[in-house]
Amino acid sequence: MSTVHLWTDQEAAANPRIAAIFSDIRATRKSDFINNFWRALANQPDLLERTWSTVKQVMLTPGALDPLTKELLYIAVSSANNCGYCIHSHTAAARSKGMTEAQHTELTAILTLANQTNAIATTLQIPIDPEFLIEQS
Amino acid sequence: MSTVHLWTDQEAAANPRIAAIFSDIRATRKSDFINNFWRALANQPDLLERTWSTVKQVMLTPGALDPLTKELLYIAVSSANNCGYCIHSHTAAARSKGMTEAQHTELTAILTLANQTNAIATTLQIPIDPEFLIEQS
Amino acid sequence: MSTVHLWTDQEAAANPRIAAIFSDIRATRKSDFINNFWRALANQPDLLERTWSTVKQVMLTPGALDPLTKELLYIAVSSANNCGYCIHSHTAAARSKGMTEAQHTELTAILTLANQTNAIATTLQIPIDPEFLIEQS
Amino acid sequence: MSTVHLWTDQEAAANPRIAAIFSDIRATRKSDFINNFWRALANQPDLLERTWSTVKQVMLTPGALDPLTKELLYIAVSSANNCGYCIHSHTAAARSKGMTEAQHTELTAILTLANQTNAIATTLQIPIDPEFLIEQS
Amino acid sequence: MSTVHLWTDQEAAANPRIAAIFSDIRATRKSDFINNFWRALANQPDLLERTWSTVKQVMLTPGALDPLTKELLYIAVSSANNCGYCIHSHTAAARSKGMTEAQHTELTAILTLANQTNAIATTLQIPIDPEFLIEQS
Amino acid sequence: MSTVHLWTDQEAAANPRIAAIFSDIRATRKSDFINNFWRALANQPDLLERTWSTVKQVMLTPGALDPLTKELLYIAVSSANNCGYCIHSHTAAARSKGMTEAQHTELTAILTLANQTNAIATTLQIPIDPEFLIEQS
Repeated sequence: MSTVHLWTDQEAAANPRIAAIFSDIRATRKSDFINNFWRALANQPDLLERTWSTVKQVMLTPGALDPLTKELLYIAVSSANNCGYCIHSHTAAARSKGMTEAQHTELTAILTLANQTNAIATTLQIPIDPEFLIEQS
Repeated sequence: MSTVHLWTDQEAAANPRIAAIFSDIRATRKSDFINNFWRALANQPDLLERTWSTVKQVMLTPGALDPLTKELLYIAVSSANNCGYCIHSHTAAARSKGMTEAQHTELTAILTLANQTNAIATTLQIPIDPEFLIEQS
Repeated sequence: MSTVHLWTDQEAAANPRIAAIFSDIRATRKSDFINNFWRALANQPDLLERTWSTVKQVMLTPGALDPLTKELLYIAVSSANNCGYCIHSHTAAARSKGMTEAQHTELTAILTLANQTNAIATTLQIPIDPEFLIEQS
Repeated sequence: MSTVHLWTDQEAAANPRIAAIFSDIRATRKSDFINNFWRALANQPDLLERTWSTVKQVMLTPGALDPLTKELLYIAVSSANNCGYCIHSHTAAARSKGMTEAQHTELTAILTLANQTNAIATTLQIPIDPEFLIEQS
Repeated sequence: MSTVHLWTDQEAAANPRIAAIFSDIRATRKSDFINNFWRALANQPDLLERTWSTVKQVMLTPGALDPLTKELLYIAVSSANNCGYCIHSHTAAARSKGMTEAQHTELTAILTLANQTNAIATTLQIPIDPEFLIEQS
Repeated sequence: MSTVHLWTDQEAAANPRIAAIFSDIRATRKSDFINNFWRALANQPDLLERTWSTVKQVMLTPGALDPLTKELLYIAVSSANNCGYCIHSHTAAARSKGMTEAQHTELTAILTLANQTNAIATTLQIPIDPEFLIEQS
């Protein structure tokens, strides 16, 4: 169904630049599984490299938000953007990082509520309260 | 700029049903400030009542996700939906619930990355890996 | 394909809270058919209850708009949001409430035109005419 | 704020092709008011002509849906697409075609509910029930 | 999966109006292949006629942009709108008009970058620089 | 209106990391003008660095698509995403790179048509023709 070829392990192994990135993905994630996202990106080495490097920096480096919160935020964006692939892969990732059913339930409730109030604010074109604006000195 | 009238405190006080909800909003949030969202919804008492009741249940009842995480998720959806009002009000809410600049920075980085990889998965129409599908026994 | 389990009738029957809602859905709609939307929501009883109660209030209570108009509006939003599940279920619902082929054709023409002029207004960033703004005394 | 020039009446009068369309808009709508949408499109005569001709055919020719229902559908799409210009102009148009406050309230409630259930179906990636699919003999 | 019937060649041949348009599509594109888009639109002859006539005028008439650039723009919009059908059909069309793999790669990189910076501008609600506004004398 | 502070030249000059990037933006673009987008990103140095580096690589390095085509694609995505800031800045950029009024007109016509046919394909849930799918050997 993809508009580009999905690289097999054999094809990746034959291309040193792709092989190195696939190898780093496997080592970093401690898993042999390479999902289709990276197999499709292999057609575009620069983008593959840039994307994997950003994923490592943003999602896998300890920072101000914990790993599970990051995955929940990823699901939120992917759902609002209606990206089926991304919803499936990041819901699986959130589960593997410990998302409980109670947390998934609450996530769904928040996404539902946010879409609900977004629709109200947009349909009624509600003006922003001056109280919400920060100073820009 | 709104397509409906925004209720003043005086008008709200004169309508027992609206007055009761505004009063509950003030008491629950421990603040006298009623933002435009609720002043616009006052034209639609059923929707006002249902929306406020859901906000209390989803956002203000202790649950499986902490209050700040909920606000971050709200910003994520509002940003993906391009709801300026909602981005402003929930960024303010997140700050009042303790969001640090480091967390805001990391949130922005995640939203940016998610939109980036969503675009790749959609443009290339990448098929979902069977590994991501759960059983539906 | 769902990211959550879809409840069977047997599972629903064994859970009094879910059983009561499924029973109310069947009685209200005068049909034994429970579609996947409710079977997925059964994992999240609070959201299931709130959603079904809102659907009954908004879609099934006689009001200022007739039932078919409500379904057409639902298709319009679902199409703009690109929700395949929702387009299918509400197109079926509209047909069952009497939508003729001529009406479906006209609906499609309006959705097409609206997306067309929305794109123009957005691409050219056309400013709102003061004549369209209502007073907010 | 527009990315293109908005044509004045004087400029339009000096261009026979634009003058004819503006004149037809005024005559068809029985109003001297030409809103910014058409003043922006005047830079692109082919698109102006095609768009106005389609608006006349879809929105102003009696058909299977009544004029007010058409405007409500237009608001629904414009809201889901987050087109502020379009929400304002079509909410004004709906009011001028007789939309009551009760109908506006109900419209808002439906748009809110639809965004809410769309979010659930998308977040949970609920599969379409075979019962909703029509035969394609 | 469609919500409407897809017309077969036999059915189209039996309806003079549809037959004439299908025949024009085949002659204009110098190909016997009629894709599902037109077979679905055959249920709505006015919309079919208007849409095909606009496609011929905008996409197939020599103008200020070359045919391949037009297809790339079409993919960009379809991807942002998450229209799987349109992404597939216009990626195929772009390839048939000479899109190289290097160009597809660069297109993907631009769509990815644009979604990335759009997300930043929206999340941070960055105000438009006065330098970007044109005069509207 | 921004949810973050916009850095002045003075503030940027006092921070070596930001100063270096602002200096590179000025040198690369051969212009003293730094638009608000970069002034907002200055709060998030990692994201600023990553974003500017990607912009240079994707938009400013000679590749398979010419610079004007890239800007047109950027406008297309920004319009579909409804990012007002991005539409304004990239329409200005396209003009500075030689976009003629005829090309802007044609761009608008294509975006309009694409949104129009996207809406049809989505509303009618038209299935993808097997002819559009590529082999994935």
